[in-house]
Amino acid sequence: MSTATAEDRSWWGWGTTAGELSKEESDALVARTAAVLPGHDFTDHAPPGPDDLDVAPPRVTPPDVLAALCSDIPVDRLSHARGKAFRDIVRNLLGRLDHIPDLVARPRTEQDVVDLLDWCSTARIPLIPYGGGSSVVGGVEPRFDGPAVSMDLGGLDDVLEVDRTSRAARIQAGIHGPALEDRLRPMGLTLRHFPQSFAHSTLGGWLATRAGGHFATLATHIDDLTESLRVVTPAGISESRRLPGSGAGPSPDRMFLGSEGTLGVITEAWMRLQDRPVWQVTASVAFERQDDAVAATRAIAQSGLYPSNCRLLDPAEAFINAGASVGGGLLLVAFESADHPVDAWLDRALELATAFHGTVKTKRSKDSARQDGDSSSAWRSSFLRMPYQRDALARRSLIVETFETACTWDDFEDFHHAVTEAARVAIDEVCGGAGVVTCRFTHVYPDGVAPYYGIYAAGRWGSTVGQWDEIKAAVSEAIAGHGGTITHHHAVGRDHRPWYDRQRPDPFAVALSAAKTALDPAGILNPGVLIR
Amino acid sequence: MSTATAEDRSWWGWGTTAGELSKEESDALVARTAAVLPGHDFTDHAPPGPDDLDVAPPRVTPPDVLAALCSDIPVDRLSHARGKAFRDIVRNLLGRLDHIPDLVARPRTEQDVVDLLDWCSTARIPLIPYGGGSSVVGGVEPRFDGPAVSMDLGGLDDVLEVDRTSRAARIQAGIHGPALEDRLRPMGLTLRHFPQSFAHSTLGGWLATRAGGHFATLATHIDDLTESLRVVTPAGISESRRLPGSGAGPSPDRMFLGSEGTLGVITEAWMRLQDRPVWQVTASVAFERQDDAVAATRAIAQSGLYPSNCRLLDPAEAFINAGASVGGGLLLVAFESADHPVDAWLDRALELATAFHGTVKTKRSKDSARQDGDSSSAWRSSFLRMPYQRDALARRSLIVETFETACTWDDFEDFHHAVTEAARVAIDEVCGGAGVVTCRFTHVYPDGVAPYYGIYAAGRWGSTVGQWDEIKAAVSEAIAGHGGTITHHHAVGRDHRPWYDRQRPDPFAVALSAAKTALDPAGILNPGVLIR
Repeated sequence: MSTATAEDRSWWGWGTTAGELSKEESDALVARTAAVLPGHDFTDHAPPGPDDLDVAPPRVTPPDVLAALCSDIPVDRLSHARGKAFRDIVRNLLGRLDHIPDLVARPRTEQDVVDLLDWCSTARIPLIPYGGGSSVVGGVEPRFDGPAVSMDLGGLDDVLEVDRTSRAARIQAGIHGPALEDRLRPMGLTLRHFPQSFAHSTLGGWLATRAGGHFATLATHIDDLTESLRVVTPAGISESRRLPGSGAGPSPDRMFLGSEGTLGVITEAWMRLQDRPVWQVTASVAFERQDDAVAATRAIAQSGLYPSNCRLLDPAEAFINAGASVGGGLLLVAFESADHPVDAWLDRALELATAFHGTVKTKRSKDSARQDGDSSSAWRSSFLRMPYQRDALARRSLIVETFETACTWDDFEDFHHAVTEAARVAIDEVCGGAGVVTCRFTHVYPDGVAPYYGIYAAGRWGSTVGQWDEIKAAVSEAIAGHGGTITHHHAVGRDHRPWYDRQRPDPFAVALSAAKTALDPAGILNPGVLIR
Repeated sequence: MSTATAEDRSWWGWGTTAGELSKEESDALVARTAAVLPGHDFTDHAPPGPDDLDVAPPRVTPPDVLAALCSDIPVDRLSHARGKAFRDIVRNLLGRLDHIPDLVARPRTEQDVVDLLDWCSTARIPLIPYGGGSSVVGGVEPRFDGPAVSMDLGGLDDVLEVDRTSRAARIQAGIHGPALEDRLRPMGLTLRHFPQSFAHSTLGGWLATRAGGHFATLATHIDDLTESLRVVTPAGISESRRLPGSGAGPSPDRMFLGSEGTLGVITEAWMRLQDRPVWQVTASVAFERQDDAVAATRAIAQSGLYPSNCRLLDPAEAFINAGASVGGGLLLVAFESADHPVDAWLDRALELATAFHGTVKTKRSKDSARQDGDSSSAWRSSFLRMPYQRDALARRSLIVETFETACTWDDFEDFHHAVTEAARVAIDEVCGGAGVVTCRFTHVYPDGVAPYYGIYAAGRWGSTVGQWDEIKAAVSEAIAGHGGTITHHHAVGRDHRPWYDRQRPDPFAVALSAAKTALDPAGILNPGVLIR
């Protein structure tokens, strides 16, 4: 994999134009979907060409010294206008140009970042830090009146230092996942942070949104891989020390992690790396009953074994994305290590699973797992293609989206029931009942779980954004009302704001708001996200 | 173990009066120390009786409705005047009453906490939240002019709810370690957070100071055991949701963790628990060379095996506290689990250690380890007695203190050299060279280590506080100047402020200060700690 160039990028959809589904793939997908949603109108609505859209001229002009960093080319502005949520894609397909940044600024150095912030602060122009633009929560969209500058950090994409002894590297925030791994691979190192957006998102984006990665346990979030941060704020540059652990006051890094561009622009980070895994074992376990599947997963999560993968797919998810037919669920469990064989770890996990009436379907070591067409690898390839499939279905008036959250184990059964019921009722009301709700666990913890819901519903062309909004609101209400988090790893952005505001303790909101005013007195940084 | 009652507590020294060294223990300790520091004057200076001290009358009077919660009894006020650092103990021994709180307030309910905060905010009286009072960094001392109230949370000491499924409990902040474990034991659960101060510190204190516990790896700090927090601030009560993981904005809990009483009073927390370990294996490994010992420890820290204990003692530490004679270091390594035998884990760790020329000295499973007088168990008992030994030596004009920090692996050799050199030079200058510097690793991380230094030096009675301050400053300068943290798990308090202020990024200081002003507009909460 290599980083997409600006030319490769799809202006309207996920990832690259090259990544879009082929005709054969689309046809097969439509056929599979039609089997579940018969009677739906699958007419394909192709995206408009960016040149056909009437993009208004920019409302701001950069000072001469910054002009070379700024682009007002329409396709640049269009491709930075929003992220890659379903509602973003559909609005692109419809040619709806609600909010377009006036300029795309591309700093080449940290000083450029400082200078751009200075200009925008002085001129009071909202500035939105932009990494890979893969936000699915409205994180990069200037959803407000008046001008805006999108600051694309893609030019700050170097690995500046590698400390092999401590297994850490100083990395610029604008680097994309594949370019980063390409730089680390020759040294036998890896960040091992693989969100679904890996190819189309950046280190800075992961940090600013507290992204969730590859690991099902332990370092599930980028937070725990962070050794120190360097952040340009309007009030100065913040740089924390490289420390493996510290108890010196509240963690400075934890204030910037998840700040979604509201407090400053992350330019560099020292990240904790790992040796590339040598041993890997993986297995899939089928369950007849959902409660057994959940209990087995919980037992593994609480065992202290720390699997690298521990995904429980519900029957619909297992069928659609792993080609497996199960009554209660399919658990994909894996262990890996750069230091030692992990067969004993997997064996104990499978003992726990079978104690809850699981049936081991496949069990493979690394090499064979990659070759065989088993459920794990089928699911893995499907996983990376999902956003492209979503785009193909969005063009055909389907509503395809995901909702992710986390809750404690004791509450899971009620929680899950409430969320899936809310989704089903909303699909009923909004789409006349034509829809499917799926669930998988993406991350597991000793004290709880991160369930990830998928919704496939038959929409009406021209109305799917509104339909999506209604379903989203209904599910979000259920999540918020039953004690879950409005996001486990997709961030808050603008789409999750109403529920985030309820979830966040009021005194913390007051404190965060005061911190923002202190760091960003002009209030230019990503307004509308998190605070104000 | 049970919680110390107010009567048991030593007003001047560590822990309880019952815990003080017996005459035989003191004599043996003096004999051992005299062997290392010949010529020192070991005259014992007993503490004054609290009634012999001339404690000034309180300068504030509580409103009638709060009077029943407030004590102005001199010994109460004395025992809340400071923590348990060497300089605190010696000032107590000398009868130096620099700063005494005017009242000790003991809330019995959260509403009492609210009412006390209201009163102090309105009357602008500084209020210092007080847990077990075991601070070794000046965290609970009203080191300022004017009146002060010490708010002792010891009355809020209940376990309110236990969620066996998620393995979590809602616990009041004032509970002491032993009482908490007594409550959890019948359910087969444990918090497994065992700082050296365990018996004399509280959950709220651990949370407010980001305490470090038992684990050498993974959840080293209380931060990671925290599911949600409830905090009374002058701006309202902050309660976060119970979540196993979340990506919704910067973590609210991480702002209060480590806030050391400056932002609010923690009253409750949902804490992540564990099943009580069933399998435990432990070993000790001797090294001839320090660089081998460090490399072996690093290999284990980076192996993904996650030992529960991984303490490397340098030769002086091994000799003084584990009775072992080694040339390069003694590594104590242990694994434990409630789910599965961990012999395979230990075997792999020992393979790594022997690859770096370590010699396995002892290897035991749980039961035998507890019985045998091996180095691990010798060190363990010594560990819990250390603060009492320190007090016995402080009475005899010795300077006995610890400094703890953390740094990355690549930098360890230079760092360690700089810190030990600074300590030795300071001892030379301040104590004429009569002293010993020891080092052990308390926690290890894939990217670095937390070294813990001990200093034993021959002081002059009446001058040891000033001598300690000079040595402390010299070592702190070395730590700060070489990129370490001024504290890995002892907190900042008032003693570490000058170096914390340098370590903390300036924009973060600005943000934290703004957050404090928003939450505590009257600025009454533990002034002088962390900010202002």
